[in-house]
Amino acid sequence: MELYRVPVQIVPRPGILDPQGAAVVGALKTLGFASVVDVRIGRFLTVDVDADSAEAATLIVQRMCEKLLANPVIEDFALEAPRVQPRGKS
Amino acid sequence: MELYRVPVQIVPRPGILDPQGAAVVGALKTLGFASVVDVRIGRFLTVDVDADSAEAATLIVQRMCEKLLANPVIEDFALEAPRVQPRGKS
Repeated sequence: MELYRVPVQIVPRPGILDPQGAAVVGALKTLGFASVVDVRIGRFLTVDVDADSAEAATLIVQRMCEKLLANPVIEDFALEAPRVQPRGKS
Repeated sequence: MELYRVPVQIVPRPGILDPQGAAVVGALKTLGFASVVDVRIGRFLTVDVDADSAEAATLIVQRMCEKLLANPVIEDFALEAPRVQPRGKS
């Protein structure tokens, strides 16, 4: 049993309104960043799980995303490759 | 001038309390995910900018992070490699 860290990217689905992103575009332009065209804001999670293999860790976190972490109606999620994590470190 | 999409990961710095992550750990355990050990919750942004090169796009978005997008006192940020983005698509 190893401790795996699985990074998860959760983003608003294409076409879904992202008012927070639109507000950030406005703020960036005000600050002088004229070249900004669009910003989309989602969530980035790192989930640490005990699992027998990287494949098992991925499967567990995928189920977590489907059940709790992401809202499939308005969000897409993507998992990065699990990394073995030394215990007791954050 | 190309349109580049630069993904940005913003995470709470190690040692910084993450009450939202702790709440999600509790919820996952309640749902039966006994193997979860820790969850840290940050933000995932995609920033679309006009730039002459991928290097220029990275530099612009790095400045945006330092000035507005991330709070360096409590957050670390990491940029992924810019990707050329077809115009008019989200």
